Amino acid sequence: MTCILCRWMVLVGSLDVVFYPGSVALIGASKEAGFYIDPISASKLRDRFFLVNPRSGEVLGLKCYPSILDVPDSVDYAIFAVPAKFVPEALEDCGRKGVRVVHIYSSGFGETGLEEGKQLEEEVLRVAKRYGIRVIGPNCMGVYCPESGLFFSHDLPSEVGSVAFVSQSGGQAVNFVFSGVSRGFRFSKVVSYGNALDVDFVELVDYLAEDRKTSIIGAYVEGLRKTEGLLETLKNASKRKPLVILKGGLTGDGARAAASHTGVLAGSANIWEGLLKQVNAVRVETFDEMADVIVGFLYAFPPRGRGVSIATTSGGSAVIHADLCVRVGLTVPSFSEGTQRALGKIIPIAGASVRNPLDAWFAFQSGILPEALNIVSRDENIHSLIVEVQPGGFKVYTARDPSVVDKFTTILGETCKRIMEEQGKPTMIAVTQSIYPEFEAKIRSMFHNMNLPVYQSIYDAARTLSKLHQYRLSREVRE
Amino acid sequence: MTCILCRWMVLVGSLDVVFYPGSVALIGASKEAGFYIDPISASKLRDRFFLVNPRSGEVLGLKCYPSILDVPDSVDYAIFAVPAKFVPEALEDCGRKGVRVVHIYSSGFGETGLEEGKQLEEEVLRVAKRYGIRVIGPNCMGVYCPESGLFFSHDLPSEVGSVAFVSQSGGQAVNFVFSGVSRGFRFSKVVSYGNALDVDFVELVDYLAEDRKTSIIGAYVEGLRKTEGLLETLKNASKRKPLVILKGGLTGDGARAAASHTGVLAGSANIWEGLLKQVNAVRVETFDEMADVIVGFLYAFPPRGRGVSIATTSGGSAVIHADLCVRVGLTVPSFSEGTQRALGKIIPIAGASVRNPLDAWFAFQSGILPEALNIVSRDENIHSLIVEVQPGGFKVYTARDPSVVDKFTTILGETCKRIMEEQGKPTMIAVTQSIYPEFEAKIRSMFHNMNLPVYQSIYDAARTLSKLHQYRLSREVRE
Repeated sequence: MTCILCRWMVLVGSLDVVFYPGSVALIGASKEAGFYIDPISASKLRDRFFLVNPRSGEVLGLKCYPSILDVPDSVDYAIFAVPAKFVPEALEDCGRKGVRVVHIYSSGFGETGLEEGKQLEEEVLRVAKRYGIRVIGPNCMGVYCPESGLFFSHDLPSEVGSVAFVSQSGGQAVNFVFSGVSRGFRFSKVVSYGNALDVDFVELVDYLAEDRKTSIIGAYVEGLRKTEGLLETLKNASKRKPLVILKGGLTGDGARAAASHTGVLAGSANIWEGLLKQVNAVRVETFDEMADVIVGFLYAFPPRGRGVSIATTSGGSAVIHADLCVRVGLTVPSFSEGTQRALGKIIPIAGASVRNPLDAWFAFQSGILPEALNIVSRDENIHSLIVEVQPGGFKVYTARDPSVVDKFTTILGETCKRIMEEQGKPTMIAVTQSIYPEFEAKIRSMFHNMNLPVYQSIYDAARTLSKLHQYRLSREVRE
Repeated sequence: MTCILCRWMVLVGSLDVVFYPGSVALIGASKEAGFYIDPISASKLRDRFFLVNPRSGEVLGLKCYPSILDVPDSVDYAIFAVPAKFVPEALEDCGRKGVRVVHIYSSGFGETGLEEGKQLEEEVLRVAKRYGIRVIGPNCMGVYCPESGLFFSHDLPSEVGSVAFVSQSGGQAVNFVFSGVSRGFRFSKVVSYGNALDVDFVELVDYLAEDRKTSIIGAYVEGLRKTEGLLETLKNASKRKPLVILKGGLTGDGARAAASHTGVLAGSANIWEGLLKQVNAVRVETFDEMADVIVGFLYAFPPRGRGVSIATTSGGSAVIHADLCVRVGLTVPSFSEGTQRALGKIIPIAGASVRNPLDAWFAFQSGILPEALNIVSRDENIHSLIVEVQPGGFKVYTARDPSVVDKFTTILGETCKRIMEEQGKPTMIAVTQSIYPEFEAKIRSMFHNMNLPVYQSIYDAARTLSKLHQYRLSREVRE
């Protein structure tokens, strides 16, 4: 069914068919695999999506074929949701059918640490090679590519974004997409590749580095089976677009956990740290930090210096966050005399409130916050700005006039955008947590809709600015 | 009106009247001060709460008196919401009226850095001393004591708890109460004391150390006007109950912010660090961390060792959190052979899933998670347990059977409680953030209602366990 040229192209390296298959089959269809069936059967792949199960005529209201060989059309991409021991045989059928990519969701392979699991992996690889089938997994969620219609969970957005995420962990691949949703960004391609029997980190990053639909790459790595070409891959990708990496298993206990999870050796912490520094990848320590850094690259940009201005309606928050900014590597310099004088003209209480941090309670209440931020943004000691919005303190005003939220967020948002464009200084908004989750989510999503960098705290924004500044410095040294 | 003995008792030190006034007046009542008027007029103080404003007959539907001298009853406690320059005169009136405590909400005093503000403070102190009036503030929110009916914001809970919080910052005093609400704890007494002209940190901590309604004290300090007796105060309080301290202004930029905020000198970082260590106060770096530590003391207890067991439904989360646990000072030791054997009997996939971290997806799906936790809790290498609950992964089950959440949280919660009681090992639940804020909040509040220690991430729980363990070690050395 598939022409020799096409198959050859897959073999020589393009992963296009992994992300843009013409047709998809699910082998081992059951209602337990509803997180594949429901979203794919509602996507643009719906008419080229086939269920296979020898024991059911129908699953979740969709027809089932007894074997992939019975599917009346060609199949590019097959998802395996059958017990590990049945995988080799099903793979033979796929080979005969001309399937080009197989994603093995099933676990029970090398990650178990048992001889039996390792032997199964070898058998899978043997069959796959014989038929020229590319394998994703086993023990993983596979591919989410909203552009083509591939999904690996319920409730994933169908809108397309420009963030790619490569993850050795399936659960965290799914969670990270939701994390993006909470922060207002969407994805081009997400791959959970588990035990990495065939398609591996290096090949995926090579592909995404060249992918025009991807503007930034995030990666969660536990360890690599193949390290050949790793340095060149990371160097090349990082030159083309920001590369943000979370390396798991950097401690002894973490490395042991990684071995249990995806059956890989985590590698020495020193080697990884050196490697990521050498290629100017942004290194993060948690998935939240990764999402924060991505927001920084997408909706802001690296600051030219370390001086940050903080505006908050709470003096205590100002003090603590000045401390925290310094701890993450920024400075909170005093405003210049000119700035203090200009602020003094619009803020009546002299002294206290016109220094940095700016105690913005008066400015917030009287509506002059945008003007104050404009003044601050022209200060030469200031290279970036963070504005804290406390939904709790805000809520009381909405009781009198519900439109106040729209007005405030629009004006503040436009001010931030203008400062970024005109002054070239990243300007971030920290919407803090409150006891009004819905009100808080509404404020966040209003800023998201304006494509602004929104964080949960001044600390998160400051940590991101520091990482972005470091990235800029290293880039400049290299150029 | 007030007998000489009562006044004498106030003067010699009891702050009882600060927290339990018989009657309250608000001087400078206007709708802008609704955050005092609305909640106090709905509290048990309602019939002994009087508004004073020479220019209005009524504010927010309540009668106003032209002067405090016109109030027909005695007044123990007066809140000042008048511009700074009118404070000394209004204080004279309070003196004549026999008022015993004045809380000055107004700002525009020493914190402005201006001579004028400092002179006003001196004048206030002079008048207060002449009449024997205790002063809270200026430039602060005052007192929240749900037991007596004192409130300083809308939406504060009227239920009484056992946490006291002392804060130099007003905004953060309010925010911290909401932070407690989100985490399932309530307060005995909260004081925002601002510029600390009279009632200061030392006196407040002395009082709360002896207060039988308070089981734990949190404090946010920027700097102290009076340091006399500080060491003895902290030592004594920390001996009686856990003392958790967030010190602001430990960096140069932070100290400058503190000077602008409450007009105090922040003091050297080294001195504070040494002091807090010496008295075995738990030192935290953010308000969130303070709330987390309080949850740990309230609903759990310090572990006997550093070995923690992690149970999560995501392998990636297991790896990253094993790394993070090690970074905060815990260890994630392998389970003993006996534990692995016992787990192997109930978890079918051998090897991978029965080590530590426990990959609990199977246990979670098949309902044997409580049994697995019981087995783990008996392992001698394990001194504490953290169980991660991901609301996102859970949501899909509720579509088929909504009662599953109740059942799951009840059984898991009871298991955690039993492990704490029978094994003496703190057992924490991490309910992660999701895109279902209401569902997530529901799960959290179900655990809160069972008085369990709930965190937003394994990391937050681990950081807390490490602080609690350190506290226990230092205590043992001292005893």
